[in-house]
Amino acid sequence: MGTTSGWGRRARGKILSYLSGEDITLDEKLIDYDILAMEAHSLMLWKVKILKDEDLNKVLQALEKAAGEHKRGKFILKEELEDVHMNLEQFVISEAGEESGRMIHMARSRNDQVQADTRMYLREATDNIIDELLKVIRTFIVKADEHLGTVMPGYTHTRPAQPITFAHWCLAHADAFFRDVERLEDAYKRINLNPLGAGAIAGVGLPIDRSLTTSLLGFDGIQENTLDVVTSRGEMESEFLAILSILMVHLSRIAEDIILWSTHEFRMITLDDHFTTWSSLMPQKKNPDVAELIRGRVGRLLGDLVDILSTLKGLPSGYNRDTQETKSPLFRSVDLVRSTLKVMDGMLDTMKIDGDRMLELSRRGFATATDLVDFMVTDIGVPFRTAYNLVSTVVEESLAKEKVDAVALSEAVKKLTGRRIRLSQKEIEEYLDPIRTVERRRHIGGPSPQEVSRMIKDRETLVKEKANTLLSRRERRERSLNQMRGVIQSILKDELEIAWETLVDASEVEIA
Amino acid sequence: MGTTSGWGRRARGKILSYLSGEDITLDEKLIDYDILAMEAHSLMLWKVKILKDEDLNKVLQALEKAAGEHKRGKFILKEELEDVHMNLEQFVISEAGEESGRMIHMARSRNDQVQADTRMYLREATDNIIDELLKVIRTFIVKADEHLGTVMPGYTHTRPAQPITFAHWCLAHADAFFRDVERLEDAYKRINLNPLGAGAIAGVGLPIDRSLTTSLLGFDGIQENTLDVVTSRGEMESEFLAILSILMVHLSRIAEDIILWSTHEFRMITLDDHFTTWSSLMPQKKNPDVAELIRGRVGRLLGDLVDILSTLKGLPSGYNRDTQETKSPLFRSVDLVRSTLKVMDGMLDTMKIDGDRMLELSRRGFATATDLVDFMVTDIGVPFRTAYNLVSTVVEESLAKEKVDAVALSEAVKKLTGRRIRLSQKEIEEYLDPIRTVERRRHIGGPSPQEVSRMIKDRETLVKEKANTLLSRRERRERSLNQMRGVIQSILKDELEIAWETLVDASEVEIA
Amino acid sequence: MGTTSGWGRRARGKILSYLSGEDITLDEKLIDYDILAMEAHSLMLWKVKILKDEDLNKVLQALEKAAGEHKRGKFILKEELEDVHMNLEQFVISEAGEESGRMIHMARSRNDQVQADTRMYLREATDNIIDELLKVIRTFIVKADEHLGTVMPGYTHTRPAQPITFAHWCLAHADAFFRDVERLEDAYKRINLNPLGAGAIAGVGLPIDRSLTTSLLGFDGIQENTLDVVTSRGEMESEFLAILSILMVHLSRIAEDIILWSTHEFRMITLDDHFTTWSSLMPQKKNPDVAELIRGRVGRLLGDLVDILSTLKGLPSGYNRDTQETKSPLFRSVDLVRSTLKVMDGMLDTMKIDGDRMLELSRRGFATATDLVDFMVTDIGVPFRTAYNLVSTVVEESLAKEKVDAVALSEAVKKLTGRRIRLSQKEIEEYLDPIRTVERRRHIGGPSPQEVSRMIKDRETLVKEKANTLLSRRERRERSLNQMRGVIQSILKDELEIAWETLVDASEVEIA
Amino acid sequence: MGTTSGWGRRARGKILSYLSGEDITLDEKLIDYDILAMEAHSLMLWKVKILKDEDLNKVLQALEKAAGEHKRGKFILKEELEDVHMNLEQFVISEAGEESGRMIHMARSRNDQVQADTRMYLREATDNIIDELLKVIRTFIVKADEHLGTVMPGYTHTRPAQPITFAHWCLAHADAFFRDVERLEDAYKRINLNPLGAGAIAGVGLPIDRSLTTSLLGFDGIQENTLDVVTSRGEMESEFLAILSILMVHLSRIAEDIILWSTHEFRMITLDDHFTTWSSLMPQKKNPDVAELIRGRVGRLLGDLVDILSTLKGLPSGYNRDTQETKSPLFRSVDLVRSTLKVMDGMLDTMKIDGDRMLELSRRGFATATDLVDFMVTDIGVPFRTAYNLVSTVVEESLAKEKVDAVALSEAVKKLTGRRIRLSQKEIEEYLDPIRTVERRRHIGGPSPQEVSRMIKDRETLVKEKANTLLSRRERRERSLNQMRGVIQSILKDELEIAWETLVDASEVEIA
Repeated sequence: MGTTSGWGRRARGKILSYLSGEDITLDEKLIDYDILAMEAHSLMLWKVKILKDEDLNKVLQALEKAAGEHKRGKFILKEELEDVHMNLEQFVISEAGEESGRMIHMARSRNDQVQADTRMYLREATDNIIDELLKVIRTFIVKADEHLGTVMPGYTHTRPAQPITFAHWCLAHADAFFRDVERLEDAYKRINLNPLGAGAIAGVGLPIDRSLTTSLLGFDGIQENTLDVVTSRGEMESEFLAILSILMVHLSRIAEDIILWSTHEFRMITLDDHFTTWSSLMPQKKNPDVAELIRGRVGRLLGDLVDILSTLKGLPSGYNRDTQETKSPLFRSVDLVRSTLKVMDGMLDTMKIDGDRMLELSRRGFATATDLVDFMVTDIGVPFRTAYNLVSTVVEESLAKEKVDAVALSEAVKKLTGRRIRLSQKEIEEYLDPIRTVERRRHIGGPSPQEVSRMIKDRETLVKEKANTLLSRRERRERSLNQMRGVIQSILKDELEIAWETLVDASEVEIA
Repeated sequence: MGTTSGWGRRARGKILSYLSGEDITLDEKLIDYDILAMEAHSLMLWKVKILKDEDLNKVLQALEKAAGEHKRGKFILKEELEDVHMNLEQFVISEAGEESGRMIHMARSRNDQVQADTRMYLREATDNIIDELLKVIRTFIVKADEHLGTVMPGYTHTRPAQPITFAHWCLAHADAFFRDVERLEDAYKRINLNPLGAGAIAGVGLPIDRSLTTSLLGFDGIQENTLDVVTSRGEMESEFLAILSILMVHLSRIAEDIILWSTHEFRMITLDDHFTTWSSLMPQKKNPDVAELIRGRVGRLLGDLVDILSTLKGLPSGYNRDTQETKSPLFRSVDLVRSTLKVMDGMLDTMKIDGDRMLELSRRGFATATDLVDFMVTDIGVPFRTAYNLVSTVVEESLAKEKVDAVALSEAVKKLTGRRIRLSQKEIEEYLDPIRTVERRRHIGGPSPQEVSRMIKDRETLVKEKANTLLSRRERRERSLNQMRGVIQSILKDELEIAWETLVDASEVEIA
Repeated sequence: MGTTSGWGRRARGKILSYLSGEDITLDEKLIDYDILAMEAHSLMLWKVKILKDEDLNKVLQALEKAAGEHKRGKFILKEELEDVHMNLEQFVISEAGEESGRMIHMARSRNDQVQADTRMYLREATDNIIDELLKVIRTFIVKADEHLGTVMPGYTHTRPAQPITFAHWCLAHADAFFRDVERLEDAYKRINLNPLGAGAIAGVGLPIDRSLTTSLLGFDGIQENTLDVVTSRGEMESEFLAILSILMVHLSRIAEDIILWSTHEFRMITLDDHFTTWSSLMPQKKNPDVAELIRGRVGRLLGDLVDILSTLKGLPSGYNRDTQETKSPLFRSVDLVRSTLKVMDGMLDTMKIDGDRMLELSRRGFATATDLVDFMVTDIGVPFRTAYNLVSTVVEESLAKEKVDAVALSEAVKKLTGRRIRLSQKEIEEYLDPIRTVERRRHIGGPSPQEVSRMIKDRETLVKEKANTLLSRRERRERSLNQMRGVIQSILKDELEIAWETLVDASEVEIA
Repeated sequence: MGTTSGWGRRARGKILSYLSGEDITLDEKLIDYDILAMEAHSLMLWKVKILKDEDLNKVLQALEKAAGEHKRGKFILKEELEDVHMNLEQFVISEAGEESGRMIHMARSRNDQVQADTRMYLREATDNIIDELLKVIRTFIVKADEHLGTVMPGYTHTRPAQPITFAHWCLAHADAFFRDVERLEDAYKRINLNPLGAGAIAGVGLPIDRSLTTSLLGFDGIQENTLDVVTSRGEMESEFLAILSILMVHLSRIAEDIILWSTHEFRMITLDDHFTTWSSLMPQKKNPDVAELIRGRVGRLLGDLVDILSTLKGLPSGYNRDTQETKSPLFRSVDLVRSTLKVMDGMLDTMKIDGDRMLELSRRGFATATDLVDFMVTDIGVPFRTAYNLVSTVVEESLAKEKVDAVALSEAVKKLTGRRIRLSQKEIEEYLDPIRTVERRRHIGGPSPQEVSRMIKDRETLVKEKANTLLSRRERRERSLNQMRGVIQSILKDELEIAWETLVDASEVEIA
């Protein structure tokens, strides 16, 4: 950092504060990862004989102490040390002494360190969000199972169009969430790669072992090209935020349905009091504040996505300080999505469904008249066009009564086709009853209870599979980190040979 | 707030925290305004005889106490009381007693209160940002005055196109900032209007006096329609952020010029060490971190603008909780723009200009050849097309020497026009010298020192005018608030008649 | 344009097409303005004696011919000539001959020309949109006048909160549109400035007269600094799109209200069949497609705003080809907003209001209970807190009946205050009747028919004022252009002296 | 479509034009897919015995005729028929007659049809973009191979930081593009699913066979839940545009490097004349217009992404007309990205690299001083801190000479460590020579020629794999469509049994 001109100290303070922005606060989320990355780096330096036994021991002691203090909430980041990396380095130096402590600076740069931290943060964020998603999916599946026969209007243009069931509605949203899970799983493949060793931009002029840090930190592979490592900052963040934006749009859709359906005018559902605000002067007016905020907070995701992408736009390759600004939108959005999934789950779980009102609304507006046309064509053998005109005429005549008139229908058939059919009013009404029209929709993906039951079973299996995959990812990472913890313990206990051999093995693990 | 089902307390905590988000922290910026608005409201209630002397006295005492505590940093907002309005109301109740304290709830709602607070916040933010803008403009004017004759390349496509001066560059940016000032002044007219009295949405069923609160709080007018008041939340915020986005784009442009011009390859300017980072291993490599962050943080403004606008998109009229989310982008962006203007000012003020290098770069690439064409047309009387071809041929022949060759020119003239002109190499070089070509550009807005001098004087006058307008806006607001403080003091001293008469006068002030 | 290497012609075609993009199609909107700007430029060149009589005559003839052909749809832009400027220049050259035609290239550049065209386009777009806005405002005023007494629920959280009137709703939206008009008027001041004379970036080395082109083209002033002119490309476009984005959010809000209120469940309004789609099988299901598209097309405005702002982000000063890309979002958005205002006007004008249903919905949910509290406090003299508790208790007891019970109220008053009040059920119901509660809201901006009447008169006056201002702006521009047309005619008729004197006068007109 | 009120015909025209917007033009891209989907649908209806032999024959004849006319550019979409679906349906009716033609309306809706078309469009767009990406990757690999030893500065903060090679730079961008390819491949899994059969929203009340249409149209699976199908419109479009946005950011980065490096001041590369614009007056000033437009057009992608996401935000589930607006941003962006990849490929392929200038710039500013520190630590055995201080002191003393002084270094070592080392000036300079420091970076991902060679081979293999995967996706789709064409031919030739059996087989194909 440069010398000072006549511009004075107060100015310097403002500049420092402008440089770090909220960075030092954001970096708190990275402390654990920074310690891990530094431990792996130190072990690697020892393994390639750059770090001596004694130096390694001191450094690892210092890092373990840092980890301990952080666990007890006592590792406080100082703004004047800029970021988590400098804070940790300074801590190590003060604990391990200048000579040993500074050694960890070798073959390393903040440019690759911050990427390693971010990727470790992101891989956990991915799995945590998948976890929350699977919970909401399970809630939807449970609700679907309870409401296989709860007929409700399927809306197009916010108008009742054709009857479906509440179970069908639940699975529609579950399926959208499954795609969100898939997108996160896909991104994970690109996230869990090791950037350590890229140095400032050109790698390092020492014989480092990138496979070893990969293995110790539980990465699934290496992001190879060193310039690519440094330049790609913000890319994973963009991909992640794009995925979360789509997910948040899904959440806003459910929120909008809930806001609408819980209005006085729709009355199809009642929200649990936990999720509303109201006043004792208007006890019936339950305001869906939680749902409104879910809807409103999509804006934040879109804003954060635009923030990151437009920050990256037009930057030359290599490191540019601009990319520091990708942390804030990333962390904010991850926290927002997690908390939104939690409250959404509770809101869905506790809301009451008014099946009678739903059925009542399903009966409005000749929503099942298309079925009558189909019936005319397939069962009576009338050509489509004739059937359509026929039903259309009868519907028009039946407008006042709000139901299709059997006599009118028979007469119309006779007039148009010369044929005589016998359909009692009861038969027609039964045929057009929403419950019956739903039952008829038995093809793949249809709303009939039978088909929805099948889909529920399928999704139950799929949730389990996704949960297992999630578990095995977490276990795999934990195994790697445990192995590293073991090595560190061996070294601190002076069992250097055991440590050495474990590292040799770790370095040779085949990476996908 | 509703009763709890079996869903438990921990859930409730999560929901409350989801409802308030960061709102309670953000609301700290509104405490002062909320107290002022409540004071004005109470005085108005007293004036229209809804509030009794005794109640008013207690309420005002409580509010003054709140103001005092806030000044000493002791008025802490509690999350369980949701927002600044409930916190303040609770404070007043606990100080003034249930009977008196709750009276201030009459004829008021959080919906109009938050708008009043936001508008008071915004009118100050407007003026504070104008203040910072005028400072940077002044710096540009001073620099321009110093560099009237500092010739530099004017760039198109990041390539030297025609010579200008550094002074000209300074004024270009100053003029852009003047437009930003204008936009803020225009927005101010829409900002400084009184929303109080709109109630929850339909106004109130009591004979309130909206002119009085307008006058007491220094508003310039009333936002009349009560539904419009409540529905328009987020609109001023959007307009404001759009203005700041354009301003931030202006700042990013200067930052980009600085990043480019301070590279090793351009070397036209040197940043003061305060505004760079560097290492003792590479003392010549001064990284322009401050400028990079200014460039990078445009992203945040764009993100915040998208955040607000997409939050508002598609909301029905009336109040919707979604709009709570407009606070965070507004406050963040205001703070960011203010701090950016400050560091930009310092950076411009302290950077060193290398006039020699600028002149050197201005001489490259026949940047002044168009002047030669003009000369041929206007002084020698050659038609444009002939002149163009002529110069173009000579330029091509002169490529190796990197300067226009006099002999070649004379021969080309002779060949193409049959005429003989006598131009020595010295004359041509003088004519095409960047310093001379700049001097020739004397028309309105041109880069010649003479014209730039004139523009500097104009801008100096304009800065003073803008500063005076700013001052008078601030004084006007201060006068109103002082008057209100006076009334409050009279009441607390039990000089009710003086207070009464001042209020009567205040209520009758003509509003624009 | 350079020579070709071995890369071949097909490639060159692709590149040319990539360079122009849709630019050549977009430029059709600029033909008229480009001709005008070139005419003014030529007259100016003649006035400052750069252009000879003969050349001027030929050039003006060519330009008039171009204008005529364009009027008959026969001035077709060719892609291989890149843009409107080159197309027009080529036309002039082919008509006026190489020697005369090329002269207009003097003292001019595409960089200032495109800015002049855009500003002329923008100033008309501004006024055209204001025109459409004033029409919709007038429709709202007419509707408001018809529905002064049409009581409807005022919604908060999409739930009936307090009664207002349909007239009040109309004026709320009208007032928002008035602010949009104001913003456009403010922007106009920055739009209608003359950029001609800025040249490529550094002005020109000839004694041009920028005041003259300003006067001839009806600009209100000059954008002085030549670097600022070129660098500021995209800035007015950004400001304009930000204004249109806010306006489009306003339109989306009305659309959302319409979509909601015309649902089967709300049934407060019925859209005219023109503005819906439906099928004869479901005659009652009228889909509000127009309103949905208005809501959906906000997205386009936000997208176009982000497009422009992020294109400008991080560009260095001077001209950069990137800014060509600001045309498409500008033109698209202007067209979209104009057509949306038109259909919105028709939809509002033709939709049917169901006053009975509105009144019915206003009566739900104790929406007027706050009035009862106010009544207790101001008329009965009960302290606020007591009044609140009292009403709250009675409301709870009255839940089943859905109306406040008079006996219960009297008893509660007696119990809580010891006092005896006599309120018959009829009196209470009358007091709480939505019609009465609306009438009580007579303060400035309240929904009472009396106050709304006053506001209507005010807005009628304001609309007239705005329309007059609009008219005078248009007339002023027309006068200038007519004067120029006169000068051209004089020159074409060889009345050079008349032309000369008019130009001398025009050049000396005081510019604001 | 409804009856008309007094609002008149002209209005209706405006409304229709507002409803379709540019939709009818956009739909041209979907004609082929719409025909295919309708053919598959008709065959399926026949297979499940809803459509009779005769009707099928007529319908297929009509569809084949439509396909033929489209191929000859004669199938023109009429605006009054709204969209591609209605246009095609009308064509079929007019060709096949009312009775047969209208039958294809059964069990189908525009809501599932448009999704089918879009997914078929998207799967091809995915593969076409991958194709273009692989081409650019190949160009990078070829360039890398040519420039293994072309040393250049690696930039951080736009300042030379450490030497790398041009080959290394090429592979960095290639690796970023590989991730773009991966993202597209991942999205493909979600894209290539069959939505047909979802009907308007609730599926259909007839025993349709969704597996059969899946198989005939070459889909890899079924998007099951019918409500999900209709509601998810815009989701794949969002995911796709997010991927393209990141890809476009990658392209803008290369463009920015090219703009910078081809400036007069950097002079590291020279663009081929095809990709620049210039004038004969300034032959050395080659403007990088293509690169600037690539950079500028990122804005469009970001805008289009925001457009789609904010259009979807807050929509309720089911079909809403708003989603029609997702077509324009999708199609625009796909076209833009494809053309950008093409010109980028050409620009990279033809630009000239100035290795000497690159090497010269690599030698500035002690960029290799960290290597000297490493050397001191690992070879001389000096502790890191001492080594750092030592080098830092020597660097400071060597500032004037711009190179590290051997004598000063030896003395410093002696002074600080008491040791005597012998390093000649030549040895130091060789050690610090950029070529040598690059060679030392041999670890995985480092810039040494040896390691870059290895990476090139790896990437060559990877490109081939990706190309093969792409090919097999295309072949698989083609096989399915060919099978369908075969069935259609059989039917038209009246070989109904062959057709029937093929359909039975197709229906039973196992879907992933």
